[in-house]
Amino acid sequence: MDKFRTLLKELPALELGVEQLDLEQSFNRKIAEDIKSPIDVPHFRKSRMDGFAVRAQDTFGAEEDNLIPLTQVEVIEAGDIPQKSLKEGQCAYVATGAAIPEGADAVVMVEYSEKKDDKILISKAVTPTTHIVEIGHDVNRGDIIIEKNTLIDLPTMGILAACGITTVPVYQKPKISLMSTGSELVTHKVSELEVGQIYDINSIVLKQAISNTGSEVDYLGIVKDHFEELKHRIDQGLKENDIVILSGGTSKGEGDLGVRVLDTFENIEVQVHGIKIKPGKPLIFAKLEKKIIFILPGYPTSALSCFYVFIDDFLRRLSGYPLRAKNAEELELGERIYSPIGRYHFKAVELRDVDGVRKIFPIKTGSEAISTLFYSDGYIEIEELEEIVEKGDKKVFYTY
Amino acid sequence: MDKFRTLLKELPALELGVEQLDLEQSFNRKIAEDIKSPIDVPHFRKSRMDGFAVRAQDTFGAEEDNLIPLTQVEVIEAGDIPQKSLKEGQCAYVATGAAIPEGADAVVMVEYSEKKDDKILISKAVTPTTHIVEIGHDVNRGDIIIEKNTLIDLPTMGILAACGITTVPVYQKPKISLMSTGSELVTHKVSELEVGQIYDINSIVLKQAISNTGSEVDYLGIVKDHFEELKHRIDQGLKENDIVILSGGTSKGEGDLGVRVLDTFENIEVQVHGIKIKPGKPLIFAKLEKKIIFILPGYPTSALSCFYVFIDDFLRRLSGYPLRAKNAEELELGERIYSPIGRYHFKAVELRDVDGVRKIFPIKTGSEAISTLFYSDGYIEIEELEEIVEKGDKKVFYTY
Repeated sequence: MDKFRTLLKELPALELGVEQLDLEQSFNRKIAEDIKSPIDVPHFRKSRMDGFAVRAQDTFGAEEDNLIPLTQVEVIEAGDIPQKSLKEGQCAYVATGAAIPEGADAVVMVEYSEKKDDKILISKAVTPTTHIVEIGHDVNRGDIIIEKNTLIDLPTMGILAACGITTVPVYQKPKISLMSTGSELVTHKVSELEVGQIYDINSIVLKQAISNTGSEVDYLGIVKDHFEELKHRIDQGLKENDIVILSGGTSKGEGDLGVRVLDTFENIEVQVHGIKIKPGKPLIFAKLEKKIIFILPGYPTSALSCFYVFIDDFLRRLSGYPLRAKNAEELELGERIYSPIGRYHFKAVELRDVDGVRKIFPIKTGSEAISTLFYSDGYIEIEELEEIVEKGDKKVFYTY
Repeated sequence: MDKFRTLLKELPALELGVEQLDLEQSFNRKIAEDIKSPIDVPHFRKSRMDGFAVRAQDTFGAEEDNLIPLTQVEVIEAGDIPQKSLKEGQCAYVATGAAIPEGADAVVMVEYSEKKDDKILISKAVTPTTHIVEIGHDVNRGDIIIEKNTLIDLPTMGILAACGITTVPVYQKPKISLMSTGSELVTHKVSELEVGQIYDINSIVLKQAISNTGSEVDYLGIVKDHFEELKHRIDQGLKENDIVILSGGTSKGEGDLGVRVLDTFENIEVQVHGIKIKPGKPLIFAKLEKKIIFILPGYPTSALSCFYVFIDDFLRRLSGYPLRAKNAEELELGERIYSPIGRYHFKAVELRDVDGVRKIFPIKTGSEAISTLFYSDGYIEIEELEEIVEKGDKKVFYTY
């Protein structure tokens, strides 16, 4: 089990191409180059407060009982361009965020001023730079503001916007060929099923699960259990994309095909063939030079839980997308759980309150029922040689 | 502070309309009606195993040393329609998931069979129903499969797909009018800034933040600090949508407008006017009959942290979208932090390892710097009357 996880972690990252995106479309994408700011932020001296821009030396000695009168030459609201340069004995009203006029080197907060006749009386001395945000205080022009490989989250979008950057170079999303295999499968758009047919659930669920990882899905449709057709479709998937995920086709009976098709590729390394897990027929993971193929079990409950347990994080590491927050908490079993010997078991469970304590209970249906995942809160892992986990035993409960 | 949070929690849910969506577009939306299954799942008897469909009574007495020969009349792969009805002494090969032919009432696993000449020799007796998944085992036709108000997650999509449901009634997304106010603001699409102008960051960041909650943004653009213009735009926002979010316009100086505009509405209840928090000029939350207005501070760092702390969960509860997983963990301060008396302080902090222990350190820049949020790992809350939090004190560290 751990072998599989280790293999996935050790895979070299696929080389993803680069595309230019509108900043507004770039959320949760990974930056492909160091980004430098084309401007200083702020690019002008601005006031941190509502108050009066002054020459600091003009205020020296000002106190509550020694008001110093200045002549107001201008009102500068946020967004205004100052029209005048301050001379000795002059001041200008500045709103928070407004530009400081030339000649001024400090701001007196409005609380330390009063208007009398045509003068502004200042009641507090300030030193140069007081309440002024200097040019480049936040970002200097030419500084690297965002490093290559950074995930673009909201604060990152904010910094890029502050610097006036409108398009950003990001890595392309990993593209994944997805198909469902099984002659019994029918698209859910068909309204009547024949005996023997069932709706193809995996295409819909895995398509969404893959796009939730920040990857792009190239859906190749339902493939019948025919050797040539499956081989043709896997060929096509590998030609077009670096990763192929298919579900079904791993059963061990006469209908088994996926493995036989993989065996026909030269240079294929079947890294893990048939990890004996439950739920799920053997899970297969193969490498073909730089390309990767996953074959998931056909039962939707198995396919989705295998996807969550093994593939979800792997794809997110590729795309740079944040990993899903997962819970892992040791809890007591409220009921005995049986497990088949010889298979590593991801047992779907639900949590119920027993006298105020949350305990683990098994979901009664198995992987053949689509409702199993729906009613489960998460899963526990049961070792290959554990046959019974007793009521009262403790297990780590994981959310998918 | 808690007053504000309580108010938000007690708000009656907005009445959202209903729309029909393709199942494939419905992820993370909230179901607007109980959904019944139009079919049984499975809608035919199917085999749980690769093996032989038999009449159970024909196998009675079969053991390893008492093989019972049956005549194979058919091979039924998954997806095939059985062509024959089993008679006494007959069997049919069935793959996992394949339909069980009429006349059969059990499946013998392939492991307990061998082929000899033209016969199949059975080495294990089975009771009726063995390894057969009955019609409706998973879902019965007419059952409510998904209840109204359920969030459509991946297992829910799976159940809907299994029942052949192609369109689902979901609640419309909450629609939110968003605008930035400030005469100094310029869209980031303008390439050259004049003195006094800055790029409008909030529209880009809040637009994304709001859509991350499963809401739809109706962006009304940048509004200058003109009373009539702002009133007109807020009017327009309220006419078109139930929630208006604007940033800026809450300062207390001459440029203050948002509050004066709100005061002109009859029947307005300004629920919270100017919670004294830091970072952020007073935050405003007003109700106008069934409509809601939020005025966020203008500084992007303040606007986004106020959004995270106060509004994010509120919008997610409306849309049904999962709440963001937030961390809350008591950690030690690695350095003294000062805080202004009289303001409830959401202090942006970073975590650093000190001899293997994660400790809290203050971010040195304030809310005027867009980089503050970028470099922070989360925040701590400092009470209005706390002026100093000493190195070594413990505080709960929250992620945004």
